Amino acid sequence: MAYEEFTIEGRNAVIEAFRSGRTMDKLYILEGCQDGPIMTIKREAQKQNLQIKYVTKERLNQLSETGKHQGVIAVAAAYEYAAVEDMLQSAREKGEPPFLILLDNIEDPHNLGAIIRTANLAGAHGVIIPKNRAVGLTAVVARTSAGALNYTPVAKVTNLAKTIEALKKEGMWFVCADMDGTLMYQMDLKGAIGLVIGNEGEGVSRLVKEKCDLSAAIPMKGEIDSLNASVAAGVLAYEIVRQRMSC
Amino acid sequence: MAYEEFTIEGRNAVIEAFRSGRTMDKLYILEGCQDGPIMTIKREAQKQNLQIKYVTKERLNQLSETGKHQGVIAVAAAYEYAAVEDMLQSAREKGEPPFLILLDNIEDPHNLGAIIRTANLAGAHGVIIPKNRAVGLTAVVARTSAGALNYTPVAKVTNLAKTIEALKKEGMWFVCADMDGTLMYQMDLKGAIGLVIGNEGEGVSRLVKEKCDLSAAIPMKGEIDSLNASVAAGVLAYEIVRQRMSC
Repeated sequence: MAYEEFTIEGRNAVIEAFRSGRTMDKLYILEGCQDGPIMTIKREAQKQNLQIKYVTKERLNQLSETGKHQGVIAVAAAYEYAAVEDMLQSAREKGEPPFLILLDNIEDPHNLGAIIRTANLAGAHGVIIPKNRAVGLTAVVARTSAGALNYTPVAKVTNLAKTIEALKKEGMWFVCADMDGTLMYQMDLKGAIGLVIGNEGEGVSRLVKEKCDLSAAIPMKGEIDSLNASVAAGVLAYEIVRQRMSC
Repeated sequence: MAYEEFTIEGRNAVIEAFRSGRTMDKLYILEGCQDGPIMTIKREAQKQNLQIKYVTKERLNQLSETGKHQGVIAVAAAYEYAAVEDMLQSAREKGEPPFLILLDNIEDPHNLGAIIRTANLAGAHGVIIPKNRAVGLTAVVARTSAGALNYTPVAKVTNLAKTIEALKKEGMWFVCADMDGTLMYQMDLKGAIGLVIGNEGEGVSRLVKEKCDLSAAIPMKGEIDSLNASVAAGVLAYEIVRQRMSC
């Protein structure tokens, strides 16, 4: 497991982090701020015996990594990357076939955050990202995930293709997003499944695609090339949800 | 119709804009840059008799509104807002029942751009946004739409609730995204439909919701409250696509 330090910024993100039981190191609040959400955050801080530092807007702006702190910044015990095995364990405990989302080099932190958010709500057991040039768990990702990062584990692996190979031996099968693939509505997407989403510009890389069992296409009626990566992930993840619900 | 001035930034966005036949006012290219996409842009500029200005990185950074110009910025004849009637006309010409996406105060330009992109690929005939505090067609929106703004018309209306009322008289019906609504898979979403997506934080406003015929819910299995607005729009738009394809 690796660790990264980070801040949590914005009212909803901070409240969600408290509620999920995360331990905070520091809490900065804009002086004079005492609306409802800020009062909630103060109560949560008292429960944790966490000292609140009241600071100026200039100081908050300086501390902010996202530029969108909304008057509150918490510095939390760093997010912990999960192990892939924990995700399989979590599926077993819930009595569900594993459902993982693998990201082949997502570079935009907003996309990563939105996909973790989707993974949480679609009932995926975890998100797997590669170590190389892909974005990791930064403050922008935490904020864009709207709290989902507190519940949905994210694992970082050295080689996505090798991880897929190992998981296939455990009975999982893999479908990658590919506009030249089979129409997703015509595929059976039930069972222990890994959904592979590619990079924003280049899609799924050849090496990773070769490891996948199937390629799924979202129907495209318009003139442009592709959906935003987090939208494509959402549409495909929910096709899996729909098929699982219709069992 | 209203007009707004804007820049188009990034290689794909500029190439797409040229290909869609858009007239450019100015074209700035980073001096010394002559890779494939830039050569394509130069050829397109020659066809339009458009003079190219070779500038330094500092000058491009200064001109850039998105901060992601990739060495090329075009200043185009401003985007034109469409009229709602043109969208209905376009549906009639294609022999399709109208499919419109209405946004009740989307504030994040990345979400608006991603939704226009989704609208294009899901075969929607247009996107309707309100005039008030919602984001309009800025450079960030144009860039995030990945060229879709050249093909999918966007109309700006004074009052979304009144527009819905008027369109209902033309035989359209409206479904709004609402987590307390009916599960989307259990609804009939065929026919002349308007899909209403709410604001990032507050969802669909009461006044607009009251005008809608139905509320559709995306199944939510996780711990957090809601999907990213552009992901929710994508998931619902593609449920409409799926139902239309299964006719």
